[in-house]
Amino acid sequence: MEFDLIIRNGVIANASDVITGQEVGVKNGKITCIGFGLPASDSTSVIDAEGGFITPGGLDSHVHLQQWNTPTGDTWETGSRSAVCGGTTTVIAFASQNKQHQSVLPVVNDYAALAKDNSSCDYALHLIMTNPTPTIVNEELPFLVKEHGITSVKLYMTYDAMKLRDREILDIMVATRRLGMTTMIHAENHDMIELIIETLEARGQTDPYYHSVARPQLAEAEATYRAIALSEMMDTPILLVHVSSEAAAKHIRDAQTRLLPIYGETCPQYLYLLSERLKGENFEGAKCVCSPPLREKPEDLDHMWTAIANGTFTTFSSDHAASKFNIEGGKRLGLVNGRPFFKKIPNGLPGLETRLPLLYKGVQEGRITINDYVRVACSNPAKLYGLHTKGAIMPGYDADFTIWYPEGKMKPFELTNDMLHHDIDYSPFEGMTFTNWPRWTILRGKVVWERDEGGFVAKRGGAWGEYVKRGSSTLRGSRNVFVNEWRPPI
Amino acid sequence: MEFDLIIRNGVIANASDVITGQEVGVKNGKITCIGFGLPASDSTSVIDAEGGFITPGGLDSHVHLQQWNTPTGDTWETGSRSAVCGGTTTVIAFASQNKQHQSVLPVVNDYAALAKDNSSCDYALHLIMTNPTPTIVNEELPFLVKEHGITSVKLYMTYDAMKLRDREILDIMVATRRLGMTTMIHAENHDMIELIIETLEARGQTDPYYHSVARPQLAEAEATYRAIALSEMMDTPILLVHVSSEAAAKHIRDAQTRLLPIYGETCPQYLYLLSERLKGENFEGAKCVCSPPLREKPEDLDHMWTAIANGTFTTFSSDHAASKFNIEGGKRLGLVNGRPFFKKIPNGLPGLETRLPLLYKGVQEGRITINDYVRVACSNPAKLYGLHTKGAIMPGYDADFTIWYPEGKMKPFELTNDMLHHDIDYSPFEGMTFTNWPRWTILRGKVVWERDEGGFVAKRGGAWGEYVKRGSSTLRGSRNVFVNEWRPPI
Amino acid sequence: MEFDLIIRNGVIANASDVITGQEVGVKNGKITCIGFGLPASDSTSVIDAEGGFITPGGLDSHVHLQQWNTPTGDTWETGSRSAVCGGTTTVIAFASQNKQHQSVLPVVNDYAALAKDNSSCDYALHLIMTNPTPTIVNEELPFLVKEHGITSVKLYMTYDAMKLRDREILDIMVATRRLGMTTMIHAENHDMIELIIETLEARGQTDPYYHSVARPQLAEAEATYRAIALSEMMDTPILLVHVSSEAAAKHIRDAQTRLLPIYGETCPQYLYLLSERLKGENFEGAKCVCSPPLREKPEDLDHMWTAIANGTFTTFSSDHAASKFNIEGGKRLGLVNGRPFFKKIPNGLPGLETRLPLLYKGVQEGRITINDYVRVACSNPAKLYGLHTKGAIMPGYDADFTIWYPEGKMKPFELTNDMLHHDIDYSPFEGMTFTNWPRWTILRGKVVWERDEGGFVAKRGGAWGEYVKRGSSTLRGSRNVFVNEWRPPI
Amino acid sequence: MEFDLIIRNGVIANASDVITGQEVGVKNGKITCIGFGLPASDSTSVIDAEGGFITPGGLDSHVHLQQWNTPTGDTWETGSRSAVCGGTTTVIAFASQNKQHQSVLPVVNDYAALAKDNSSCDYALHLIMTNPTPTIVNEELPFLVKEHGITSVKLYMTYDAMKLRDREILDIMVATRRLGMTTMIHAENHDMIELIIETLEARGQTDPYYHSVARPQLAEAEATYRAIALSEMMDTPILLVHVSSEAAAKHIRDAQTRLLPIYGETCPQYLYLLSERLKGENFEGAKCVCSPPLREKPEDLDHMWTAIANGTFTTFSSDHAASKFNIEGGKRLGLVNGRPFFKKIPNGLPGLETRLPLLYKGVQEGRITINDYVRVACSNPAKLYGLHTKGAIMPGYDADFTIWYPEGKMKPFELTNDMLHHDIDYSPFEGMTFTNWPRWTILRGKVVWERDEGGFVAKRGGAWGEYVKRGSSTLRGSRNVFVNEWRPPI
Repeated sequence: MEFDLIIRNGVIANASDVITGQEVGVKNGKITCIGFGLPASDSTSVIDAEGGFITPGGLDSHVHLQQWNTPTGDTWETGSRSAVCGGTTTVIAFASQNKQHQSVLPVVNDYAALAKDNSSCDYALHLIMTNPTPTIVNEELPFLVKEHGITSVKLYMTYDAMKLRDREILDIMVATRRLGMTTMIHAENHDMIELIIETLEARGQTDPYYHSVARPQLAEAEATYRAIALSEMMDTPILLVHVSSEAAAKHIRDAQTRLLPIYGETCPQYLYLLSERLKGENFEGAKCVCSPPLREKPEDLDHMWTAIANGTFTTFSSDHAASKFNIEGGKRLGLVNGRPFFKKIPNGLPGLETRLPLLYKGVQEGRITINDYVRVACSNPAKLYGLHTKGAIMPGYDADFTIWYPEGKMKPFELTNDMLHHDIDYSPFEGMTFTNWPRWTILRGKVVWERDEGGFVAKRGGAWGEYVKRGSSTLRGSRNVFVNEWRPPI
Repeated sequence: MEFDLIIRNGVIANASDVITGQEVGVKNGKITCIGFGLPASDSTSVIDAEGGFITPGGLDSHVHLQQWNTPTGDTWETGSRSAVCGGTTTVIAFASQNKQHQSVLPVVNDYAALAKDNSSCDYALHLIMTNPTPTIVNEELPFLVKEHGITSVKLYMTYDAMKLRDREILDIMVATRRLGMTTMIHAENHDMIELIIETLEARGQTDPYYHSVARPQLAEAEATYRAIALSEMMDTPILLVHVSSEAAAKHIRDAQTRLLPIYGETCPQYLYLLSERLKGENFEGAKCVCSPPLREKPEDLDHMWTAIANGTFTTFSSDHAASKFNIEGGKRLGLVNGRPFFKKIPNGLPGLETRLPLLYKGVQEGRITINDYVRVACSNPAKLYGLHTKGAIMPGYDADFTIWYPEGKMKPFELTNDMLHHDIDYSPFEGMTFTNWPRWTILRGKVVWERDEGGFVAKRGGAWGEYVKRGSSTLRGSRNVFVNEWRPPI
Repeated sequence: MEFDLIIRNGVIANASDVITGQEVGVKNGKITCIGFGLPASDSTSVIDAEGGFITPGGLDSHVHLQQWNTPTGDTWETGSRSAVCGGTTTVIAFASQNKQHQSVLPVVNDYAALAKDNSSCDYALHLIMTNPTPTIVNEELPFLVKEHGITSVKLYMTYDAMKLRDREILDIMVATRRLGMTTMIHAENHDMIELIIETLEARGQTDPYYHSVARPQLAEAEATYRAIALSEMMDTPILLVHVSSEAAAKHIRDAQTRLLPIYGETCPQYLYLLSERLKGENFEGAKCVCSPPLREKPEDLDHMWTAIANGTFTTFSSDHAASKFNIEGGKRLGLVNGRPFFKKIPNGLPGLETRLPLLYKGVQEGRITINDYVRVACSNPAKLYGLHTKGAIMPGYDADFTIWYPEGKMKPFELTNDMLHHDIDYSPFEGMTFTNWPRWTILRGKVVWERDEGGFVAKRGGAWGEYVKRGSSTLRGSRNVFVNEWRPPI
Repeated sequence: MEFDLIIRNGVIANASDVITGQEVGVKNGKITCIGFGLPASDSTSVIDAEGGFITPGGLDSHVHLQQWNTPTGDTWETGSRSAVCGGTTTVIAFASQNKQHQSVLPVVNDYAALAKDNSSCDYALHLIMTNPTPTIVNEELPFLVKEHGITSVKLYMTYDAMKLRDREILDIMVATRRLGMTTMIHAENHDMIELIIETLEARGQTDPYYHSVARPQLAEAEATYRAIALSEMMDTPILLVHVSSEAAAKHIRDAQTRLLPIYGETCPQYLYLLSERLKGENFEGAKCVCSPPLREKPEDLDHMWTAIANGTFTTFSSDHAASKFNIEGGKRLGLVNGRPFFKKIPNGLPGLETRLPLLYKGVQEGRITINDYVRVACSNPAKLYGLHTKGAIMPGYDADFTIWYPEGKMKPFELTNDMLHHDIDYSPFEGMTFTNWPRWTILRGKVVWERDEGGFVAKRGGAWGEYVKRGSSTLRGSRNVFVNEWRPPI
């Protein structure tokens, strides 16, 4: 029993249990042993957690990096750097089809190439489908599952450039069910939103704040209910992404009560930020434009915390989709001749680095438990998306860790953007006070972030992150239970 | 105080109250007095109800007559004859736009012309919209409301030839809200059904029974929820037509609990018939093809009765949409080269004449009260569709009545099709035993059906029915309550 | 056709319909005719309603008069006077058993004697049972139903002096089911409240405001759910009295959805007053002590309006249970040695006279319709409690009317207590502005209140009110549907 | 690193994760290491699990042994033997106060004495309170928590000899909240049941089957709702024991959705047995008398499986409360003069040994996952009842294991009672076929059951089981959230 690394004196937290008085031994990037009194040799690094939590390395399963529609955002280099400095060791980002693409194989290759050698964390890819041709659905998806380990697709029910009709979603579900893939759905009723936007624009109501008016909770609730109905008919597991409203969460919970394979995700912005932020002066409101939008009332935030704590939400992701606020020439996307047009503002916030600290705050404040934290930020993302060696601190798993300060040890600070490692010129969470933060981030046994000393640690000449070929979900999947005698095509 | 007609010894039933020992006096087609000891002159006809119920003349607000897609069905002459012989004194039928029509004004005129001078009952028209061009929506609808008294439109969420996208429905709602119109919606998720039909056909499952498999309750539940969401966003009253499943009824009731202006309708077939009927030999199952389809279990029928009794359903209509079973040359629509294709079978059942007797059976069996009967079959249809002189036995209202036998007086009989007055060669309710039936039907003071003596009574050289120009609904309408700060266009 | 009284030019409103252009003819205290152009003779009085609403005389089915526990309250003379001056023509008050009474027959006789010759409105009695001995339940109840027409009992789940155990309620239900009686239940969990009161008193929290703290909505919700369960088991219709909270209303509606014979009542105080009123200085909060207590938030009031409008609440009553605020010697019940003890404050508010004007305000403000008004304030109380000639404006019914001003005609006024006709020294509604009020109140054809001229009109030497012997409910009753194979004793 | 025992080649299943390819090392009764390639010395026992599941030793948290009301049942010796032969390594049994006991300290000592030296498994005690005197509640409970580690009480809402009024429950909750104790509640409405029993007996309906008629699902639903309301008011965590019906489970889930600290438990009989079993001839039905009773329909069983799978149920226990069917002299309790009286039949079934195999069947059949199994049968019982070293396979925990056969390895068998190790003459599960069963049971490192070789292994001259002094629950507890401004006494 020899170890490259031993972590001592930590409180090991998994999704179900919390243990103290034990040590974690790492060899060749894997956890090889948990026990007490593990022997250190000369070549063994030792980290003393001093009583802080050791959680599995964070897994951010909803990240947009270097997509065509975020030209001013992070690269894989800056994005993944930001991730590890915030405790995240794995991201799943999107390879996105454009409607004109007749094949998605080049798309996947292109996106993979962007990440390769540039990522400081491990990474995998979801496929965004915007034009599900029969060839793609029937021939390319199986290939991607088998050869690339891409076992999830993301579909949009809104956005002109992305949205699919119900029938297209159903056709894709035939394939994803057969292939054991997870289907992610952005659920907002497009037609409702479209009408509202047109009316608002006709009335000259185009300031950033009207973005939140344009996408009411009702639009999310409706589309969520519809997505669940499509899933129930097809016996196909789905994840509702970035859920922001109580009514949508209730639909998800009702479906879970009936054991439908319905999953939900929320994001930090829906736990902390309200739509009043969109009213910021000097176009500052544009910094908080995302879809679904920030909601109206403090109770809306509470409902999202509740839905984490009661188990409705399966995963917690950043939906990092960042654009710079100030771009070359003093311009800003979303201003047309100096006048704001909310519809032109890039959707999405930066959040890769702040995701875990913001969730951990909920643990500190008693809103959720440390087990809840691990479940939604590490364990479930790994299970749902088939990263079978990630998300738990157990022998045999990858030696990915986020190690926190013991409470009271870290000096509290107020967040400013220059503390962050992304290549974005703001954070919506600036000004918040933090009393804990990832102290060490460890990727397959290598320290990639040490807050008190070296800060961000990168491999000389590149980055340590590797592509993860994924398997199938180990959460509840298709059940072979149907709404009547009809059976989906196999 | 002089009367053309006095009805004595009946039990007068309205939607709220039941009174005995009173008489109804009629003059010039109107109820002019309710009291006791009304004086009869020589010119006064007197009807002795002998203790039977006097209910307001039935109002069938969902009837298809002489539409292009029912070429082998009833004419206005035969249909309206059938109506009055079953106690119905007013029908609201459909003027139906085809997608290629760029104006609906000719459509309305054409349909009105078909009815004119041919209808034995009073009649009005709804407009079916399948292609809501801006001209129609913005210019023609106001004209129809004002000049024709057409204050309701019907929209389809399914059928290739009829279906509208959510956005089209929303755009129409802008106009119907402004104009105080009632929007009727056929709610089934088209895309779900389309996929199922394709799969079934590919598997050779094309017998009539598969029609019911092709349109699961889930498709109705989803579309109902969506329609309610569209209505809530637009603050626009809607009626969900021909509701057949518990989940859809529950959505309606939940909306009503919140005081949304959501209304529901069911039909006799969903109270009495099950999908096993679609399995009839020799293609007999085709006789029971309607959409939504007959449901699976006796409990499904119970749920519909319950939703009448607890007030969820606002109206009870026949959805008469009849086609002959045997047509010229021994053919039958729906057989292709002698092989059944359920998709080709005309949708819809005959039911104008049997509607009220079937509902009255529920009164006899204690499932509903006589007040419930009047509410859904007479009073609410009049209120919802703006027939302000119909639907109640009150002075000032039209003298339309359905008079029933006192219980025990009529000889029970088993229904055969030759007892009915439509021009259809079957009834799905043949074989059922009836112990009551409308004894007299009276239209604006004129006896048009007297079961024991003259049977059907028509005006010499024509029919007495007249066109009814309708007003706005007097049920709960737009509330000026909205989901957020957005307001619909006015 | 001769009439003692004709009312012209009114808008006649019943629970379902509203008619204009008709007249009401009255003879011998009964409505004998509704029609147009009714002939007036010399002996006919004529009232010109000038376009105002004519509603059925108000029926207040929850009134405490001259009960032992309201020694400083109204007599039948002052209470019934107040009733008719507020548009109410019938009250149902309580004959109340004390626990030591072994027979309720004297109780009933005593209470009836108090009312006899003293009541300006018609009156009937409910029986409050606090000690259901077998003799009372099995022998006296049938006698009361048959001989006295007392067809309802009221039971308490709280108050030391009144409360029954579940088993006692069940035993009573065996009898009420058999006898077709309506069971009224005051539903609050006594044990919860008892514990809270003890704790509050131990902490010295005895100001009137703590009365509202002592009886949380949860106590009402729990007991309501329990009462419904007892009713479901026994297949016995019940009315939950004075419902004040959303959760309780939801339980009632859920039961109604399933067609259980569950009814609900609310009162003016739960539509207009909040618990902050209990904080009044100088012990003024004591004026608003009732149980259930006033609730916390404006939304609580909205929920009660909603539950009237959506049909959950069957009846609307005053729960008039008044005590003078200042009593002889400058004392006030509820002050012990000058210190407030909320537990000693008599429960109940004055409200007989303000009930209908307060409900009518909801019509004016669009919260409910005039049909809703009639349904809960006149028609349903008559149906539920078996007053078969009350509650509707139909020939054959008693000629009881409340006639309102046409909108805009009455001079608005701010209510002060000296405008009222009760013998109570305050009203919780003082200071509210009214823009309509009953203009005439007519009891069986006799004008008993004419606001613009004579004011209150009493029979010389007494009062016109008569005792009403009641029949059974005509609303949904026992269904012979049971929770399993067990059947209640018959 | 030296080990007394190494378990190899198993699939280690915890509540969240499942890992393969790892070994478990045990030293001095504790798990000291999980890893691969653990070194075995001469003194190390090695078990080869051959690919079967290694689950934490089963924890049965609801067991009745040697209570006064089960005189013919198991002793601690026979009961605990049966437990370990069925995979259970820890039982929590009851020390039961009789109403006449003025102190519970002797009770606890007496019950502890019965177990001491006789138990083959570890054991702890809950306290049943039937007469909560102030001394017991305020003085003895704190003592029991501190000195005996008894951190849970069980309360009954039914049974003449046990039931508490709401107020008594509330008073106890004041103490349990303060002390961090878990309150277990048997929730059935006593008064409903009492009335039904009296009626049934009066009708001579006293066969065992009527036991199930006497305790309808409604009685459980009502009491469950009430218990939750009491808990919500007092901010006190409770566990609803042996939940048997969908409505009760729904109340629990609704409460959990709102984050109330409400927990639920079900038992094997509610997953497998229906009330028809109570109809067995020759009084055989008496073998299946338990409370709540077996339910009516297969769907009832499905609902209980669903409530395990969706997380509603926290724990899964046997509620072992066995009595012999045939007792001395050929008699049988429940027969009075040879005639059955269901009320006299001892309530409760034997089930200690079959509990885990029956739950594991659900894993085999895909109803639940192996994680669900561990969660409800091992992990949650340990967390809820404060056995902090039990319920998980993690270093530092007790070395308690249930090791299963790899699927396909064990020869299927049909259960007969002689295969079981209790001292009861029947099992309600006789005749069922099993394809897996605990192969080894290991208690703190010692093999106590090896099915293929030695069978039951006991310490020479006694038993290895030890008393476990418990701590507080680590599941969600009191939240300091209240229904209004009132706060419980501290």
